[in-house]
Amino acid sequence: MTDTSSNKAMLLRRVNDMELIPYAASNTAPPGTCLIRIKSVGICGSDVHYFKHGKIGDFILRAPMVIGHEASGVVEAIGSGVTNVAVGDTVAMEPNVTCGLCEQCKAGKYNLCPSVQFFATPPIHGALQNFVLHPGKLCFKLPPGMDTEQGAMCEPLSCAVYACGKEKANVKPGQAVAVHGAGPIGSMVSMVAAGLGARTVILCDISKERLKMASSRLSKAGTHFQFVNTSALSPEKTAEEIRKLAGGRDVDSTIDACGAESAITAAILSTKPGGTVCLIGMGAPKVNIPLLSASIREVDLVGVFRYRNTYPTCIELISSGKVDVKSLITHRYTFENGSILEAFEACEKGVGKDGKPSGKCMINITDSFKSKL
Amino acid sequence: MTDTSSNKAMLLRRVNDMELIPYAASNTAPPGTCLIRIKSVGICGSDVHYFKHGKIGDFILRAPMVIGHEASGVVEAIGSGVTNVAVGDTVAMEPNVTCGLCEQCKAGKYNLCPSVQFFATPPIHGALQNFVLHPGKLCFKLPPGMDTEQGAMCEPLSCAVYACGKEKANVKPGQAVAVHGAGPIGSMVSMVAAGLGARTVILCDISKERLKMASSRLSKAGTHFQFVNTSALSPEKTAEEIRKLAGGRDVDSTIDACGAESAITAAILSTKPGGTVCLIGMGAPKVNIPLLSASIREVDLVGVFRYRNTYPTCIELISSGKVDVKSLITHRYTFENGSILEAFEACEKGVGKDGKPSGKCMINITDSFKSKL
Amino acid sequence: MTDTSSNKAMLLRRVNDMELIPYAASNTAPPGTCLIRIKSVGICGSDVHYFKHGKIGDFILRAPMVIGHEASGVVEAIGSGVTNVAVGDTVAMEPNVTCGLCEQCKAGKYNLCPSVQFFATPPIHGALQNFVLHPGKLCFKLPPGMDTEQGAMCEPLSCAVYACGKEKANVKPGQAVAVHGAGPIGSMVSMVAAGLGARTVILCDISKERLKMASSRLSKAGTHFQFVNTSALSPEKTAEEIRKLAGGRDVDSTIDACGAESAITAAILSTKPGGTVCLIGMGAPKVNIPLLSASIREVDLVGVFRYRNTYPTCIELISSGKVDVKSLITHRYTFENGSILEAFEACEKGVGKDGKPSGKCMINITDSFKSKL
Amino acid sequence: MTDTSSNKAMLLRRVNDMELIPYAASNTAPPGTCLIRIKSVGICGSDVHYFKHGKIGDFILRAPMVIGHEASGVVEAIGSGVTNVAVGDTVAMEPNVTCGLCEQCKAGKYNLCPSVQFFATPPIHGALQNFVLHPGKLCFKLPPGMDTEQGAMCEPLSCAVYACGKEKANVKPGQAVAVHGAGPIGSMVSMVAAGLGARTVILCDISKERLKMASSRLSKAGTHFQFVNTSALSPEKTAEEIRKLAGGRDVDSTIDACGAESAITAAILSTKPGGTVCLIGMGAPKVNIPLLSASIREVDLVGVFRYRNTYPTCIELISSGKVDVKSLITHRYTFENGSILEAFEACEKGVGKDGKPSGKCMINITDSFKSKL
Repeated sequence: MTDTSSNKAMLLRRVNDMELIPYAASNTAPPGTCLIRIKSVGICGSDVHYFKHGKIGDFILRAPMVIGHEASGVVEAIGSGVTNVAVGDTVAMEPNVTCGLCEQCKAGKYNLCPSVQFFATPPIHGALQNFVLHPGKLCFKLPPGMDTEQGAMCEPLSCAVYACGKEKANVKPGQAVAVHGAGPIGSMVSMVAAGLGARTVILCDISKERLKMASSRLSKAGTHFQFVNTSALSPEKTAEEIRKLAGGRDVDSTIDACGAESAITAAILSTKPGGTVCLIGMGAPKVNIPLLSASIREVDLVGVFRYRNTYPTCIELISSGKVDVKSLITHRYTFENGSILEAFEACEKGVGKDGKPSGKCMINITDSFKSKL
Repeated sequence: MTDTSSNKAMLLRRVNDMELIPYAASNTAPPGTCLIRIKSVGICGSDVHYFKHGKIGDFILRAPMVIGHEASGVVEAIGSGVTNVAVGDTVAMEPNVTCGLCEQCKAGKYNLCPSVQFFATPPIHGALQNFVLHPGKLCFKLPPGMDTEQGAMCEPLSCAVYACGKEKANVKPGQAVAVHGAGPIGSMVSMVAAGLGARTVILCDISKERLKMASSRLSKAGTHFQFVNTSALSPEKTAEEIRKLAGGRDVDSTIDACGAESAITAAILSTKPGGTVCLIGMGAPKVNIPLLSASIREVDLVGVFRYRNTYPTCIELISSGKVDVKSLITHRYTFENGSILEAFEACEKGVGKDGKPSGKCMINITDSFKSKL
Repeated sequence: MTDTSSNKAMLLRRVNDMELIPYAASNTAPPGTCLIRIKSVGICGSDVHYFKHGKIGDFILRAPMVIGHEASGVVEAIGSGVTNVAVGDTVAMEPNVTCGLCEQCKAGKYNLCPSVQFFATPPIHGALQNFVLHPGKLCFKLPPGMDTEQGAMCEPLSCAVYACGKEKANVKPGQAVAVHGAGPIGSMVSMVAAGLGARTVILCDISKERLKMASSRLSKAGTHFQFVNTSALSPEKTAEEIRKLAGGRDVDSTIDACGAESAITAAILSTKPGGTVCLIGMGAPKVNIPLLSASIREVDLVGVFRYRNTYPTCIELISSGKVDVKSLITHRYTFENGSILEAFEACEKGVGKDGKPSGKCMINITDSFKSKL
Repeated sequence: MTDTSSNKAMLLRRVNDMELIPYAASNTAPPGTCLIRIKSVGICGSDVHYFKHGKIGDFILRAPMVIGHEASGVVEAIGSGVTNVAVGDTVAMEPNVTCGLCEQCKAGKYNLCPSVQFFATPPIHGALQNFVLHPGKLCFKLPPGMDTEQGAMCEPLSCAVYACGKEKANVKPGQAVAVHGAGPIGSMVSMVAAGLGARTVILCDISKERLKMASSRLSKAGTHFQFVNTSALSPEKTAEEIRKLAGGRDVDSTIDACGAESAITAAILSTKPGGTVCLIGMGAPKVNIPLLSASIREVDLVGVFRYRNTYPTCIELISSGKVDVKSLITHRYTFENGSILEAFEACEKGVGKDGKPSGKCMINITDSFKSKL
């Protein structure tokens, strides 16, 4: 039995009303579950969106909900039947708690389970609190040398790993890959593509600043990173430029992380027959695109919803040094009311209180904070 | 050694200039090849297009070319090393003669081989002649009870089999499938979907006549065919109607055989998360579609270029009676100059000399014709 | 609320001690579940084995358990959230209640879930009773014309469908398939291989009687069934015979449904490079086999444990008439104490009270029996 | 036109009769081919076997044949249509020249093509000569920093990459993998498993020396290599030990690179349900193994014949530093008659003239040798 009586949680009551308050937590781990002492929680655009707008698509905040879904911590207690992790292990937590019986689950596409319970997607409570119960099978042990900030980063990295993986863009060693959008997602995708062995990664954006910042983070032996400023280019010209940088041929696959019509158009025009354009950017509901060029060359357009089966790969990419997620964390905050709100603000405004552009904002829960609280 | 000296071929010299003329043919089968005595050749829209326009996309008729690619006949001679067929066998001929060494071939996507040599795609000669040499491995023996008209129909049926197959729409037993476009392709797709075990096939078109004709051909124990006249419906309404007919849920996959923006839109809106919209219709180069709705629900948009690995399935579907290709043949012609041109005209105009709407037009080469020639 | 107070269940108390007794049943369907009024339950060798030996491998009967796992019935009530079936629907029930979160479930291999709860596998209660609660998502609606005997047969048919399916023997249209063992499983496998389009099915056994009985059941347009009596043949000779019947070539895949060393040896020697030998027979723990011949020709040896994702295919094969499971039912019994025990005896002895060889023994629960009870 | 008049080739005339002699070579590159100036050729056990025995299985030396198949060099000339490499490029050469039309090729399993033409497999000439013609599509450009010794090593590395790859053992990030046999193949397999992200690699052998040598070569951040001396262990004890080192659970997959019955037995017993035992070792024709334990737990036994689609991965693993093939080369020789024969002797005897154990023996063809010849 763990003393969890001092548990505090960041509770989003309604739009623009969020507070760190004392909150009841389980003090034991029921069968199959782990009680996790949370150490690090990253803030994501969707967290901010719920804070400022109270909904995303059909998911609507109708009752107070604890926020936060990019979480990592230490196993405090385990329930009967849990064998993959032990008390004291540092773990990353995959949020996809699925039903296991529906058609999607049975087909191995569990991320599409209509009954999924996902941290901080209404009405499911999130992980920005001291103690969280989680299914043991969704806790992934971190190897020596990997800390909880890196553990929390497995969640956003999962989107990039899923997009580049076998079922989507299917990036293979030696290939040429184009990425549209040089923000945090596009940067992570570029890192993962390189980590999976791409020989050429061509990153496109309309912003010189984003390209510059991405460029400073991207480096890996055996991968040639190239950058295209598309601000003055038509989609056709962008495609031409990509082909030129790929050595006079189409790229093997493209990941679109911006959602713009022009980017998707360029992606279709510069991806090889039989290749894939993976869509993870969120753009306008409708786009006018050269679909016929895609279909007659068997360039598949495939989207992603969250991710599945990604945590082992994330952990390997991070622990082996193939992907440096630490470089994406620009601002760190402690688990205090004002500090967390500051993190949300930095994330929302794209700039921290220090005036520096914000990438990933990370909340760390250290023992020392307790005394301060 | 076969006497092929009387060989005649339907030679397309240039736009609107095509004639059945004496034409040199091999009288032996080199190693690995079969010499085929052609018996049946179907006429396809692309044959007519080369006749009337001299090109399709980048494929341009620059020199006289024998026309015809939907062919079946009898093995007259085999070269050394041919073991899968024997002299006297009735065979269907897959036209995909590929290089076998390029990246696409090595990856098992041989239909995308950039060096493919395909009957009657310039500059490769076609099969509308008495004798044709063809690689033995691309000749597929027809079982007893299957004739050369059915053999020739394996070629157009291949598009439907490929579209419904594992790599594309992946139609599985018990599923609900929507098909947009009730012409010959859409009808064949509907037949194949049923043959693969779909429990519900929902066929949509804007033409009452096409729906009626398709309806008269579609029947299979265990499959419920339903029809939607979309002429007065918005894409949203069409999607709603499809969902209603599917029992209040999305369909498992959709095959678009018309290419219209409205059909593709409806297809996206009524296909289940994780499902596929397979595009075989040829519409406008650009379309304005709700791509975001597809991507966030992981509805993949996948096109097809010709087909691969389809002949065994075609032969099984036809010989077992699961698909009745004979019902698609509306007009038959003999291998004579005027008669063949008449077939092209019926195909082009969509109506035969008899005033009846034309579906598949089939040329048969019988011994009796010889005396008439 | 359903009156389930008259529920009776066939309770296996310990080895050789089994009785039909009044048994408490739920009278409502909790969220996500269906309350099923059972109509037909097939008896399987494993049911008999628990009855006579009290265990199978590591599964040991330690407490009284309701027997029966091949079940079908009518939906009496549904819990909230159940949308795939409605009250009054006739359904087949897949027994695989899995955890949905473990590595196997997440990988889409749910039949290997170590926490699976499966009807009548200790300590989980079975379905040979009037009323059973079951997850709605594991209830599959039967189409018009399919009865509960056929519904119950989906369970044993699932093994054959899984063995022939994409992930195992991968039987494709036009192929030649060998099956070793002409008992009920081998017969069902032969039916399914034909139903999936195999052009040639070669069934081998050492028993003239089994071959004769199988032969009388096997017939399908487009499939050529052939039979080999291997009682006097070495594995090498058997392989030779199979190759001869396959037209002078290796078969595309083999399913072994007997487990004998000689059969597995013949299977390896007569399956084509890149083909599969699927093992569903239960033979000696160790066998002496020509594994090198398999490995250097890439003939994979793959086993099966129960099945996954098979019910829609089973229903399609049965409802479309491709597989005639009724022909496998040799004896029928009513839901009465003495009658059920008779069914177990017929199943165990391989012969019914009527002196006829027993295949599938089926228990039917009709309203009329109630008065008799 | 290249002056290839001084070409010399290592011609194997018959058993024990092999000589470096002047040999006619093409001086131009026909369409689709490259003329390669060979720089490095590794010697393999099969080369030695042909030299000492004149045959391997059904492949029999019936006429003089140039030896050598692990080759890399510089492009001297390219034929029309070659676009993937240019004159002056350093390339590795995949030997699989396949037909492209047979059932295996069409299915994407081109390594099983019955008409494959493979360097130095009778009657096809090999690559141990100054100039070799090769299909352009089978020449793979090496990135900067990768030399021809590493290029030649892509051939033997391909076996390991294929064995660990998606279609065989399917090694994934974070997994535990066992390897039986610590010779050159087992060492390469261990390297590749680590390169693909395995967290634990457990290498087993009966020889302390081989384990020691392997141990000295194996090191990679993020992978824990462990070693088991099985000389005094029963298969059951070996399996127990493997499970212990894997953290008290089965390994995810096993690659057997020794072929011994005891190793295959241990492999089956210690691989997880749904996992794979990949067989690349060449042992006795028959083995007595616990096949039932494999089949009921769905542990697949899959073999390999050569490899397919491996060169891009080999190049990535080597060029990124994930696999250090240089560490496997123990002896180097120049392209002179006596020197090459010495390489064959070192390879055959397992020890070089210097008294050191021989691993990979590499022949280098430098310009300087010419003057000496």
